[in-house]
Amino acid sequence: MEKIKVTVWNEFRHEKSNVTAKGFYPSGIHALIAERLNQEPDINAGIAALDDPEQGLSPEVLEQTDVLTWWGHAAHDEVEDKLVDRIQKRILEGMGLIVLHSGHYSKIFRRMMGTTCLLRWREAHEKERVWVTLPSHPIAAGVSPYFELANSEMYGEYFDIPQPDEQVFISWYEGGEVFRSGCCFNRGLGKIFYFSPGHEVYPIYHNQEVQKILVNAVRWVKFRGNGSVFPFLGAQIKIPLETIAEKNYHSAPIDHPN
Amino acid sequence: MEKIKVTVWNEFRHEKSNVTAKGFYPSGIHALIAERLNQEPDINAGIAALDDPEQGLSPEVLEQTDVLTWWGHAAHDEVEDKLVDRIQKRILEGMGLIVLHSGHYSKIFRRMMGTTCLLRWREAHEKERVWVTLPSHPIAAGVSPYFELANSEMYGEYFDIPQPDEQVFISWYEGGEVFRSGCCFNRGLGKIFYFSPGHEVYPIYHNQEVQKILVNAVRWVKFRGNGSVFPFLGAQIKIPLETIAEKNYHSAPIDHPN
Amino acid sequence: MEKIKVTVWNEFRHEKSNVTAKGFYPSGIHALIAERLNQEPDINAGIAALDDPEQGLSPEVLEQTDVLTWWGHAAHDEVEDKLVDRIQKRILEGMGLIVLHSGHYSKIFRRMMGTTCLLRWREAHEKERVWVTLPSHPIAAGVSPYFELANSEMYGEYFDIPQPDEQVFISWYEGGEVFRSGCCFNRGLGKIFYFSPGHEVYPIYHNQEVQKILVNAVRWVKFRGNGSVFPFLGAQIKIPLETIAEKNYHSAPIDHPN
Amino acid sequence: MEKIKVTVWNEFRHEKSNVTAKGFYPSGIHALIAERLNQEPDINAGIAALDDPEQGLSPEVLEQTDVLTWWGHAAHDEVEDKLVDRIQKRILEGMGLIVLHSGHYSKIFRRMMGTTCLLRWREAHEKERVWVTLPSHPIAAGVSPYFELANSEMYGEYFDIPQPDEQVFISWYEGGEVFRSGCCFNRGLGKIFYFSPGHEVYPIYHNQEVQKILVNAVRWVKFRGNGSVFPFLGAQIKIPLETIAEKNYHSAPIDHPN
Repeated sequence: MEKIKVTVWNEFRHEKSNVTAKGFYPSGIHALIAERLNQEPDINAGIAALDDPEQGLSPEVLEQTDVLTWWGHAAHDEVEDKLVDRIQKRILEGMGLIVLHSGHYSKIFRRMMGTTCLLRWREAHEKERVWVTLPSHPIAAGVSPYFELANSEMYGEYFDIPQPDEQVFISWYEGGEVFRSGCCFNRGLGKIFYFSPGHEVYPIYHNQEVQKILVNAVRWVKFRGNGSVFPFLGAQIKIPLETIAEKNYHSAPIDHPN
Repeated sequence: MEKIKVTVWNEFRHEKSNVTAKGFYPSGIHALIAERLNQEPDINAGIAALDDPEQGLSPEVLEQTDVLTWWGHAAHDEVEDKLVDRIQKRILEGMGLIVLHSGHYSKIFRRMMGTTCLLRWREAHEKERVWVTLPSHPIAAGVSPYFELANSEMYGEYFDIPQPDEQVFISWYEGGEVFRSGCCFNRGLGKIFYFSPGHEVYPIYHNQEVQKILVNAVRWVKFRGNGSVFPFLGAQIKIPLETIAEKNYHSAPIDHPN
Repeated sequence: MEKIKVTVWNEFRHEKSNVTAKGFYPSGIHALIAERLNQEPDINAGIAALDDPEQGLSPEVLEQTDVLTWWGHAAHDEVEDKLVDRIQKRILEGMGLIVLHSGHYSKIFRRMMGTTCLLRWREAHEKERVWVTLPSHPIAAGVSPYFELANSEMYGEYFDIPQPDEQVFISWYEGGEVFRSGCCFNRGLGKIFYFSPGHEVYPIYHNQEVQKILVNAVRWVKFRGNGSVFPFLGAQIKIPLETIAEKNYHSAPIDHPN
Repeated sequence: MEKIKVTVWNEFRHEKSNVTAKGFYPSGIHALIAERLNQEPDINAGIAALDDPEQGLSPEVLEQTDVLTWWGHAAHDEVEDKLVDRIQKRILEGMGLIVLHSGHYSKIFRRMMGTTCLLRWREAHEKERVWVTLPSHPIAAGVSPYFELANSEMYGEYFDIPQPDEQVFISWYEGGEVFRSGCCFNRGLGKIFYFSPGHEVYPIYHNQEVQKILVNAVRWVKFRGNGSVFPFLGAQIKIPLETIAEKNYHSAPIDHPN
């Protein structure tokens, strides 16, 4: 079996500058996630960061990536537009995308959604309870009907995204909000999963339920569809599949002229 | 009753250069559509074109527009990016958008969808039959279970768009293709309707069924929702709605450290 | 303008036997709702109850009803199956349906959904906060980004319904749950809105936000679609719309016989 | 690896009485489909028919079935209601369902959909061309952008079903119709795929593209979700997850009494 090639991308700034973030993620959020993913026999995860050459995502790396996970926060604007173009192209060609937490406001997620992707938020160390709302979905496999995060950053509705194709999780917050925290989208040949838990100053990516969901998500966003449509995107089909009756269209009557 | 303010935007190039297009639409596609819309007591439609000052859509005009209809084809690239930014912003604030025919590849539609919006196509004067697939939808009101266009440009699947929230029409083509020809999307506070019939060298906008659909669509995309969420987009909610228990989150146990 | 004919159906048992329910709704939940709806110039609402002749919904009444609202709880099983058949038929023909609170487990809602429509619940006089999650939707018009109900019966996920076509509201509960509290479905020519707030021992239907939503919902579920498809449901189309090539299909080669 | 247990159910009447059906499917449609599925290393398919004891689906058989495929046509009414009840219950518990062709009007499909599931139809040995409309979906894997069936029974819109969660295929017919021919639905813990090609007097189930789709569909409808929510369906949660403030709800003010 060929392994799923995952590139775990991280802005990787907070973990250098913020003592709490560094405490929970000494080698970066991406390193922890990749380490966990690599425990799975069918996954081969590498890491990439904003300050790497070519912002971590050279054309070659992207070409080799089946699934890209994205964590960014303070430096969304530093991601180059031409890189966003390349990532978008790869997703539409079938690369899976998993967008994590504050990645909701990344250039690539906003590009794929077409909306502001804005939300209400509060950083108050409050409890989040994540509820399963689509139990038939593989991304929900193996977790409880709900699970709790003792400390979370609140992300609340209205969350400005298109209606997801599948709404897998909805979160409850101690401070009074709800949030569509696990959202699936089909875009081109690609699949996208947005998952909101994961603030840098909380140990959320150490949580086993969260980790199971990330593993499930990698498998779900991995392309398993139909690549044969790709060469026909934008194609002019000069020879019709069926015979078209000849007619003098220039003299076609206008049914209801003004 | 306050009328719905529609701006019918048109690239307005083919009707000047192509004799057939000019024959069917001597004052432009936009002029014909606006004239038809203005027959309705609740609609007040104006026109705008690419070669007008500010490409027809000054901030003032956009601000005054409840519903924008968009026809473009050969000059998509000439539309300025800053104008696309402004239109996107207005849609997300609640302006309705109706995208017509070759507008599928306009910058604004691609921006809103996040996909290539490419499709297969053929210009062979072939018959198109438009089928109603969601009869509960107001946009389908007043038309037959299907209607025919004697000459149409073929637009065929795979059409690279997100799954519509509501699929109102699907078209059959003489040459062998099918197409999702009437698609509804919610984006931010705005509503979007894509309608594929309408090539410039065919008298499609003279067709009464097509005209009924455009009238219905104007009424449907007109904002009638909830504007109160707007000020909260991106808002930090410092004072929680509910009391949040105090805890020493720095010492929060890591459930499952690596 | 012809008014929208609404029939507000109620089981109408609790308000006779439970002193609290009677206190809030002395003439029944249905009477209060109908009274409120009748304040609107475009609505004409009547009432009907389980213990009325023909369980309140004779064929004549159903035939005259544009929109049916349904409140039931303790006596779901008493509703006759043949009545459920008639209501289902009317919905698929275009009658709008609004299902309220414990009506989630009514025969008619389960019939329309195909699922158990079960949920988690708790009656503990707890706070519910209803959040708008689709601000472009007319049912959300005129209410705040969220509104609160001081005392509510908790309805929590997983709620066993098909994914709604449009998810307008999601609720937060003091006791820790979330719930998809405002759900839109297209079924046949009909539209269905499920709205969960509304327990009989709380004055929820006196709340102005709730009342606005009910008014909005009546207007939204009212049929404004395409009735012309109805005669073609199940129709055999002997004469094809297009010429079908003659062929000896009996001798058609089997492409890949086993 | 544990194999996916499939039960291929067939009405199995036409293949006994109709010489053409018998010619293409001498042992029945179900036997051919099961034989093909059993070529896959991860699938273990058995067969069942209407005239078998307990109509082929005893509680024990159903309990052992991961995926049920359903072909019926002339004898829908003979399927016992109590069997339909059992099948529905199993689907909602996670059994996958694949409904084939004329199974659109089976009791179980109508039960799961809540609509009439009626459509327009014509039996005229006409060409059908099946187009992929959601290339990211695993059910579309391995087939071409479209494929053709030389002879098919026409099934045309309006097809009275709820909007599918995912629309994988749309068909073109020689005689002028279109049809949503490959439709995915989530219902409870179960997944449902409806696939329309497959009339009994055409060798459609011998077609390799059709066979690939059936194999893909078996894998997709197989439950891989979250069974943990099941015990909570309908559960009363007496002890809240969070503390609920005490209040005298009987004296709660009515905000806006009539």
